[in-house]
Amino acid sequence: MTRSTPGRATGLVNNAVYQKGVKIDSPATLAGTFATLAAHPDAIAWIGLYRPSADELAELADEFGLHELAIEDAVHAHQRPKIERYGDTLFMVLKAAHYIDATESVEFGELHVFSGSNFVITVRHAESPDLSVVRKRMETTPGAFDEGAEAILYAILDAVVDGYGPVVEGVANDVDEIETQVFDGDAAVSRRIYELNREVIEFERAVSPLIGIIDTLSSGFADGYVGDILQQYLRDVADHVVQAKERVEEFRLLLRDILAVNTSLVAQRQSEEAQALSAASNRQAEETRKISGWAAILFAPTLIAGIYGMNFKVMPELHWMLGYPFALGLMLVGSLILYLVFKRKGWL
Amino acid sequence: MTRSTPGRATGLVNNAVYQKGVKIDSPATLAGTFATLAAHPDAIAWIGLYRPSADELAELADEFGLHELAIEDAVHAHQRPKIERYGDTLFMVLKAAHYIDATESVEFGELHVFSGSNFVITVRHAESPDLSVVRKRMETTPGAFDEGAEAILYAILDAVVDGYGPVVEGVANDVDEIETQVFDGDAAVSRRIYELNREVIEFERAVSPLIGIIDTLSSGFADGYVGDILQQYLRDVADHVVQAKERVEEFRLLLRDILAVNTSLVAQRQSEEAQALSAASNRQAEETRKISGWAAILFAPTLIAGIYGMNFKVMPELHWMLGYPFALGLMLVGSLILYLVFKRKGWL
Amino acid sequence: MTRSTPGRATGLVNNAVYQKGVKIDSPATLAGTFATLAAHPDAIAWIGLYRPSADELAELADEFGLHELAIEDAVHAHQRPKIERYGDTLFMVLKAAHYIDATESVEFGELHVFSGSNFVITVRHAESPDLSVVRKRMETTPGAFDEGAEAILYAILDAVVDGYGPVVEGVANDVDEIETQVFDGDAAVSRRIYELNREVIEFERAVSPLIGIIDTLSSGFADGYVGDILQQYLRDVADHVVQAKERVEEFRLLLRDILAVNTSLVAQRQSEEAQALSAASNRQAEETRKISGWAAILFAPTLIAGIYGMNFKVMPELHWMLGYPFALGLMLVGSLILYLVFKRKGWL
Amino acid sequence: MTRSTPGRATGLVNNAVYQKGVKIDSPATLAGTFATLAAHPDAIAWIGLYRPSADELAELADEFGLHELAIEDAVHAHQRPKIERYGDTLFMVLKAAHYIDATESVEFGELHVFSGSNFVITVRHAESPDLSVVRKRMETTPGAFDEGAEAILYAILDAVVDGYGPVVEGVANDVDEIETQVFDGDAAVSRRIYELNREVIEFERAVSPLIGIIDTLSSGFADGYVGDILQQYLRDVADHVVQAKERVEEFRLLLRDILAVNTSLVAQRQSEEAQALSAASNRQAEETRKISGWAAILFAPTLIAGIYGMNFKVMPELHWMLGYPFALGLMLVGSLILYLVFKRKGWL
Amino acid sequence: MTRSTPGRATGLVNNAVYQKGVKIDSPATLAGTFATLAAHPDAIAWIGLYRPSADELAELADEFGLHELAIEDAVHAHQRPKIERYGDTLFMVLKAAHYIDATESVEFGELHVFSGSNFVITVRHAESPDLSVVRKRMETTPGAFDEGAEAILYAILDAVVDGYGPVVEGVANDVDEIETQVFDGDAAVSRRIYELNREVIEFERAVSPLIGIIDTLSSGFADGYVGDILQQYLRDVADHVVQAKERVEEFRLLLRDILAVNTSLVAQRQSEEAQALSAASNRQAEETRKISGWAAILFAPTLIAGIYGMNFKVMPELHWMLGYPFALGLMLVGSLILYLVFKRKGWL
Ligand SMILES: [Mg+2]
Ligand SMILES: [Mg+2]
Ligand SMILES: [Mg+2]
Ligand SMILES: [Mg+2]
Ligand SMILES: [Mg+2]
Ligand SMILES: [Mg+2]
Ligand SMILES: [Mg+2]
Ligand SMILES: [Mg+2]
Ligand SMILES: [Mg+2]
Ligand SMILES: [Mg+2]
Ligand SMILES: [Mg+2]
Ligand SMILES: [Mg+2]
Ligand SMILES: [Mg+2]
Ligand SMILES: [Mg+2]
Ligand SMILES: [Mg+2]
Ligand SMILES: [Mg+2]
Ligand SMILES: [Mg+2]
Ligand SMILES: [Mg+2]
Ligand SMILES: [Mg+2]
Ligand SMILES: [Mg+2]
Ligand SMILES: [Mg+2]
Ligand SMILES: [Mg+2]
Ligand SMILES: [Mg+2]
Ligand SMILES: [Mg+2]
Ligand SMILES: [Mg+2]
Ligand SMILES: [Mg+2]
Ligand SMILES: [Mg+2]
Ligand SMILES: [Mg+2]
Ligand SMILES: [Mg+2]
Ligand SMILES: [Mg+2]
Ligand SMILES: [Mg+2]
Repeated sequence: MTRSTPGRATGLVNNAVYQKGVKIDSPATLAGTFATLAAHPDAIAWIGLYRPSADELAELADEFGLHELAIEDAVHAHQRPKIERYGDTLFMVLKAAHYIDATESVEFGELHVFSGSNFVITVRHAESPDLSVVRKRMETTPGAFDEGAEAILYAILDAVVDGYGPVVEGVANDVDEIETQVFDGDAAVSRRIYELNREVIEFERAVSPLIGIIDTLSSGFADGYVGDILQQYLRDVADHVVQAKERVEEFRLLLRDILAVNTSLVAQRQSEEAQALSAASNRQAEETRKISGWAAILFAPTLIAGIYGMNFKVMPELHWMLGYPFALGLMLVGSLILYLVFKRKGWL
Repeated sequence: MTRSTPGRATGLVNNAVYQKGVKIDSPATLAGTFATLAAHPDAIAWIGLYRPSADELAELADEFGLHELAIEDAVHAHQRPKIERYGDTLFMVLKAAHYIDATESVEFGELHVFSGSNFVITVRHAESPDLSVVRKRMETTPGAFDEGAEAILYAILDAVVDGYGPVVEGVANDVDEIETQVFDGDAAVSRRIYELNREVIEFERAVSPLIGIIDTLSSGFADGYVGDILQQYLRDVADHVVQAKERVEEFRLLLRDILAVNTSLVAQRQSEEAQALSAASNRQAEETRKISGWAAILFAPTLIAGIYGMNFKVMPELHWMLGYPFALGLMLVGSLILYLVFKRKGWL
Repeated sequence: MTRSTPGRATGLVNNAVYQKGVKIDSPATLAGTFATLAAHPDAIAWIGLYRPSADELAELADEFGLHELAIEDAVHAHQRPKIERYGDTLFMVLKAAHYIDATESVEFGELHVFSGSNFVITVRHAESPDLSVVRKRMETTPGAFDEGAEAILYAILDAVVDGYGPVVEGVANDVDEIETQVFDGDAAVSRRIYELNREVIEFERAVSPLIGIIDTLSSGFADGYVGDILQQYLRDVADHVVQAKERVEEFRLLLRDILAVNTSLVAQRQSEEAQALSAASNRQAEETRKISGWAAILFAPTLIAGIYGMNFKVMPELHWMLGYPFALGLMLVGSLILYLVFKRKGWL
Repeated sequence: MTRSTPGRATGLVNNAVYQKGVKIDSPATLAGTFATLAAHPDAIAWIGLYRPSADELAELADEFGLHELAIEDAVHAHQRPKIERYGDTLFMVLKAAHYIDATESVEFGELHVFSGSNFVITVRHAESPDLSVVRKRMETTPGAFDEGAEAILYAILDAVVDGYGPVVEGVANDVDEIETQVFDGDAAVSRRIYELNREVIEFERAVSPLIGIIDTLSSGFADGYVGDILQQYLRDVADHVVQAKERVEEFRLLLRDILAVNTSLVAQRQSEEAQALSAASNRQAEETRKISGWAAILFAPTLIAGIYGMNFKVMPELHWMLGYPFALGLMLVGSLILYLVFKRKGWL
Repeated sequence: MTRSTPGRATGLVNNAVYQKGVKIDSPATLAGTFATLAAHPDAIAWIGLYRPSADELAELADEFGLHELAIEDAVHAHQRPKIERYGDTLFMVLKAAHYIDATESVEFGELHVFSGSNFVITVRHAESPDLSVVRKRMETTPGAFDEGAEAILYAILDAVVDGYGPVVEGVANDVDEIETQVFDGDAAVSRRIYELNREVIEFERAVSPLIGIIDTLSSGFADGYVGDILQQYLRDVADHVVQAKERVEEFRLLLRDILAVNTSLVAQRQSEEAQALSAASNRQAEETRKISGWAAILFAPTLIAGIYGMNFKVMPELHWMLGYPFALGLMLVGSLILYLVFKRKGWL
């Protein structure tokens, strides 16, 4: 493995050393950071990296004694949220979430955090979460760095969890929209339900492990000590995680129920179609009867006309004075009788 | 943050200081309350607020040492029911529930309670719950304030939980109505089931955390001591919570089952429609056969009439004496034969 | 609250004082019972009440120090099965169950039991359970009262749980009937499944808490001591409760499955109807073709007759010697040709 | 209760006394067994009964101090698998299972086992399980009886659990068959799925309690001691139980899924039928149009023939030399025009 | 049982003895291995077998004191993943998994591992997993054998779990394909969902027990000691197992949901078919009306022609000069009137 030359420009995006809550240095290289730390034993470095190269990670591992397995995870990314303690260092994986309403999807930004007594290394693999906001807030809050690495870990965790709020609200909003869509009979809703549900499942996988992570943090940071005040702040984060988790579980229930309701409604509509078809079929049968009746009624005079059109020599009626009106009368009477018969039978 | 001037009129809706179970003062301002408390070390204040401003909360936080995180929650509202201990103070979130039968919905009134050794602050964000009733009952019950803040917490909790009873009854009633509707074949029921279910899920989220909250209260109030008597009263509340929770779970089961039954019934009706359609189709086919048969029967004399209407010079029948009756007879016989043939074939 | 005059006739339905397993008194009033107990310090009273008035409960509470909350529950009824210890007294709620095969419903008889070192008070709110049988069996069994109140509690619990057996058998029988009904294609079965399921859920709510109740009883009765022998008997009751509970869970599974199967079968029948409809429609189309074919075959001679019925002066055929037979032959041949054409096309 | 005369022939089917792993006696009566045991304090009796009478059980209870409640269970049968310790004796209920492929059902043989320091009593209520095989294997294995009653209990448990293997295989085979049937579109499969599922549920109820039973056995047999070696053998049985349980759970999942798939497939077929029906209906509509078109085409010459069949004195065409061919031409041309019109309209 | 002659060629596929991390011998026979081990007390043997004969297993059991029950399991194969400790030896069953995309199925290779202080025996029953890769990597990594048998166990476990990754990816890919297929309306997808789900269930059964297995390993290997470093590596494996397990659970959820969505979509399509059918039926009814109307319109001139074709002596119109045009006019007018009537009634 080729080491990157110390001092060479790196994927380092944000880097500072703090002492007694004051930023004392912002080295441009990792080597610079190591030097500053060596010179100030009570200082703490917060090194922010964006998609670092394997070489940069190796350099950090070498300096701070980071564990090979943690480095392996940080290189591979696609980890589940977790916390691991390797001797004096902690390795934490978080998933920041961002809701994109246009595609109704949750986008995740994986964040890896290494921490020890005098350093916190944050490794981002996506644009979000934007840790510069967190860093700025801490730098402008007096005493924010007093608890050392633990305080930084808390601030990061808090920022990530605060970011879940808009996701929860976005999904809640979509669930409401889906309800309207379902009851409006929109056929495309099944797909939307399924896809939102898939996002929710993925979000649940990001949120759920955090309760255990906070527990582990609470029961002792890297140096085996977490101040009472920080404990309360961690409990607050835990409360927000539980809140998010409860909502997510509610979404899962609602989406499952709404899919069932949709299936029920589709069946209902189908049942109504079948009823309509049945009614139409009955109407059609009635019409066929009516048409047949009229055909028969019209047929009667035709037959009579046919009969008196026969060329028999001996057909007395043909010689009657009133033979013709008689024939016409016969046609009328025949048709009338048929009409009355069909009327009585309810065909007309 | 601008502090509100002490003594200025506030969102304070109910405010009293009690000593040995007797109301000794009802100050119009928070500042007045603080003064009375300072003058009577064994007194206890119950401060009732309705949608307080951030300034009022800050004033209280300042006086009673309320934790910043609890204040943040109280400002934001939309919290889940929970209890948090911050040093000597407790912060409790409850959700009073109210059932509106007209819209078949559960309305929630979020209630935040801060308590310490000599104060209880209740912060309402909605009209309900009406704590003045609770306060009146305590004021008129001898010894009601003997256990201090704990007794007030119990009374509030009891009132909130007692309020769940009508909700449970209302939902139970709706479930019964829904059953009738389902078995009456009302098509609109799917939506009602879903929406009631959604209310029930929300209600469950209000009720469920109370068991843990009562546990925490039981295992020691702010001053680390809960009298035996109060313990029994808390157990009574817990029993009522469990009762509500059990009913809610039952509702969830019933609503899920009734939706499944509804889908089954819709399918059943659909199947019956299909059967009806099939039967109608068969009836129609029969009628078509019958009509066709009669058409053929009527057609026979027409053909014979046509034949004897032909103008051939040499057509012996035309010269027969009885040619005409013969033709008529032929028509009758032809029709009769066809009638018998179709009768035998079952077409008529 | 007006006290009932001591000695006045009450809702007391069964009342006796036992000493060393022998019934020494059956006082007609509560006051008489209190007097007998006072005179015999090692005696035990079993007071059986049926829907007692608030006054009677107050009199008992006063004498035996029953807790206000327990009394409140006993007055309100509609409690879930539970056990509560208030100082030296126990309060237990049980639900006896009775299966009514005609309506396929489970009827519950709520039973409240108060017990202390020298008394057991049983309060019934329904006809069942019939405790006189339990009392008689204990009175005729030597040593049955040796363990005091605990033995009576066991006997009541055993009677209630033994009563669950027939309920389980009744439901099992109905489930079997439902299976037959489902596979016989009876459309009304959805409702029956749902309603039986509802009864089963309610029954489950009666049975489930008993495991916890027996646990509490086992780990120490009112006087903090349960003999080894009684422990074994309680374990036997617990075993029967578990047995009932397991069956109930099985019923829930089976009823859920059978509903799913029913929906599947209904869909299956629907699919078969659709197939039948499709077949009928095809048959009908064939018949229409056949009828149309015959109409065309019959039409040919009509047209020929029409043609030779025309009155043109110059129509050579009309003057042919064999014009008439020629026309008839033409009719026959025309029809035959059409018949063969349609036959070949498969229309006839 | 009349005691059976000692020495009278009983429902005793297999009875032997062992000492240091050797069969020292096979008494024909229970009394004989008791005598042999009394004469050899370090011997152990294995008494095998098949549907014993109440008297026989009472005789054994009397001799070995069996508990009344265990006897009650053994008389009633229909117990769930369980283990109970009554003082120095153990009472164990097992359910041997047998798969009958013809009826696709699981048949259970309930087995009750009483054991103490010097006896094991096995009570069968069904033909299976065949314990004589177990007994034979133990008699021919050196040292098999060294652990006393515990070794016999292990051997029985092992035999029962080994018997679950073929059941699991039989059900697995049926599940495979059902899959084929479902995808072949066999309509009868819903019933088969349901009924097999019912058997699986019942089998699960036989298998599940065994894990707890083995735990209880492992943590101390009747004499409070289980050798290390036996522990390992029990763990092996437990492993086989877990294996059976896992498969059973898998079957439940698969059967639930396959039912859902079947419903989906039925709906699919229904959808295809509906499509076929729709297509047929369209074809039929087309044919109706075609037939109507031909009817109109044939009708044209009829009308013309009718017109020239009229008897008006003044009809010039009738006197034309070529009137007749003209009429025939008119018929042809009229039909042709109609033919072309209908052809263009797509009716033919 | 006939022992295989020591020194005879066996099913031994890979066999080596290591000392201080260096391979000191690769004996061709088991006997050779035993001899080398006896000569080097601090050496460790890794014996790789492929479908060994019962004799070979017996030889190993004899030499290393392997337990009869473990041997039984190794002979029978078809075990669930598990770990068992028999005195100083461990017996572990693992299932390597391989995804075959062509058949969309997971293939399992059962692997049995025996280990003691100075040996690891790996028994394969399938081609995979290929342990030679693992062995090679360890042989080329300095210090890889320093932790003895435990290090080998870890390496095997790691290789098996690493092999789950591609399975998870393959299934994930298929789930995505299935989603596309479902929303494209492919009818065959139900079967694919079910079959993939079945594979996933089986895979879950391979993965799930590993968490317990790693726990057992972590809390002490055969010699009751696991180094800190190995612990961390085991935790890494555990993390990967959890990751696989979570994905598998996600797949199960998604496949269940997608089946429900598919059923919903099929119902939707069915509903649309029913609507189409209904529309077609209405169109057909309209056409029938139109055709009937035209039939009646055409019929009018026919009747008139028939009437004037009658042979009555006295029919004034026949003698009119303009009788013929009058008749033609009558035909036209009659048809026109009918046309207008039907037009107004909406039949045409
Ligand atoms: Mg989307
Ligand atoms: Mg996403
Ligand atoms: Mg936050
Ligand atoms: Mg915050
Ligand atoms: Mg949206
Ligand atoms: Mg998406
Ligand atoms: Mg908060
Ligand atoms: Mg609503
Ligand atoms: Mg609401
Ligand atoms: Mg209350
Ligand atoms: Mg109350
Ligand atoms: Mg209502
Ligand atoms: Mg109560
Ligand atoms: Mg009923
Ligand atoms: Mg009932
Ligand atoms: Mg009993
Ligand atoms: Mg009994
Ligand atoms: Mg019945
Ligand atoms: Mg029993
Ligand atoms: Mg069967
Ligand atoms: Mg069976
Ligand atoms: Mg076995
Ligand atoms: Mg075995
Ligand atoms: Mg079979
Ligand atoms: Mg085994
Ligand atoms: Mg496959
Ligand atoms: Mg497979
Ligand atoms: Mg690995
Ligand atoms: Mg690795
Ligand atoms: Mg694929
Ligand atoms: Mg890793």
